[in-house]
Amino acid sequence: MRITIIGSGNVATHLSAALKNAGHKIVQVYSRNINKANLLAYHVAAEPIDDIVLIDANTDIFIIAVNDDAVGEIARQLAGFDILMAHTSGSVGISTLQAFTDNAGVFYPLQTFSTTKELDFRQVPLCVEGADELITKTLEELARTVSNNVYQVNSEQRKILHLSAVFACNFTNHLYGVAQQLLAEHNMDFNMLRPLIAETADKVKQHLPAEVQTGPAVRKDEQTMQKHLQMLDNSPQLQELYRLLSQDIIKNTNGRNGDK
Amino acid sequence: MRITIIGSGNVATHLSAALKNAGHKIVQVYSRNINKANLLAYHVAAEPIDDIVLIDANTDIFIIAVNDDAVGEIARQLAGFDILMAHTSGSVGISTLQAFTDNAGVFYPLQTFSTTKELDFRQVPLCVEGADELITKTLEELARTVSNNVYQVNSEQRKILHLSAVFACNFTNHLYGVAQQLLAEHNMDFNMLRPLIAETADKVKQHLPAEVQTGPAVRKDEQTMQKHLQMLDNSPQLQELYRLLSQDIIKNTNGRNGDK
Repeated sequence: MRITIIGSGNVATHLSAALKNAGHKIVQVYSRNINKANLLAYHVAAEPIDDIVLIDANTDIFIIAVNDDAVGEIARQLAGFDILMAHTSGSVGISTLQAFTDNAGVFYPLQTFSTTKELDFRQVPLCVEGADELITKTLEELARTVSNNVYQVNSEQRKILHLSAVFACNFTNHLYGVAQQLLAEHNMDFNMLRPLIAETADKVKQHLPAEVQTGPAVRKDEQTMQKHLQMLDNSPQLQELYRLLSQDIIKNTNGRNGDK
Repeated sequence: MRITIIGSGNVATHLSAALKNAGHKIVQVYSRNINKANLLAYHVAAEPIDDIVLIDANTDIFIIAVNDDAVGEIARQLAGFDILMAHTSGSVGISTLQAFTDNAGVFYPLQTFSTTKELDFRQVPLCVEGADELITKTLEELARTVSNNVYQVNSEQRKILHLSAVFACNFTNHLYGVAQQLLAEHNMDFNMLRPLIAETADKVKQHLPAEVQTGPAVRKDEQTMQKHLQMLDNSPQLQELYRLLSQDIIKNTNGRNGDK
């Protein structure tokens, strides 16, 4: 397909590289920041532009990978072309595009992207949704050229998926950070925890999380929990976080015994 | 060394297998439950016992891998032998053993163990502490026979380490579970999230967590956070958890821009 990328952030960067590598032609890369457009366009052999009036209409799809709150405005500006447009956001409904065109879809990669880290795009779950069946089919076929994990997900499901990803990824990473700071404050290195973090994630590749829950809360080890809360006396916010997470674990397990 | 294992849970099981495989002799396995003693003793070619009076004094070390609140009582019962004893707990001080003997130490594996999953013990961080330098050296040498990651950690540091592990492992796994339940309630499969969880853990192998924090909170995307809080209207506890974690991320980042 001939593909136009709107955006130059992490999603735009990883997605356009994957599409290019799958044999598609990246026609143009649009960014408000021409330097960012130049850089990404250079890597995927596309034309960089920083103004929508420069859009080349000889394209099959606009992939809109911009901040959530900019999706509607971009759609409004692109509506005149009557070319298929798909946004890549977890939390924006397809309706935001449908306000401007019937030729709308969603192409949502459920992964955390950083400019500083490569990943295997074929493992990235791609969630597609089309305004009609033909669009859904087109997006699904496009998705399969870059990923082995393609799902049809409607806008309501996608919002839940995005929320659950905030818990499983963003909040999880923050807890890694809490742990790292606790160690740093006591002159210990984050390397000590890295094998534990890797193993914790590895366990849920085969198991459901509740099956492998460990720790003081699931054992209802009140003594250890009280000691930990005392240790956090100088960090009321972490103390509250500890209390809330422990309560939620206890509530979920209802007497099941955890591993050590 | 000739090693006696006190306990038959996950830590006892993984540790005795690693010690046996490193060429040490597991003399006896003690458990209050003779069936569990039998099973573990069978795997490591040791004698199973369920009564401390049956302890064979021809051993170099008692490794006490029992519940935290049973460590003191076991130490009291073993004190008469005047043989080196080391417990394996993150949250119990060395002083709990020193109440009964000077021949005391700690041999704490910082990892999450399940009976249902194998792991590479050589990657497990082992944190050792001795009541004197000679004991520390003995435990450190023993630790190096089974792990590449051996640390000297005193009791105060170990308590912090254990607390940080609760955040990085136990609480993290619970957040995986929250995400899985959100998906299940909306007929979506946990498989959709597994690549994201793996990548989130993978990122902090090279980076510090704060460097790779992503999501609505670090972007200060109020609109998305408000939408998510509304979606959790029927789960006040999760709503509070979402609010608290987001506040803590915002507090930690102070205006730093996150990746998408």
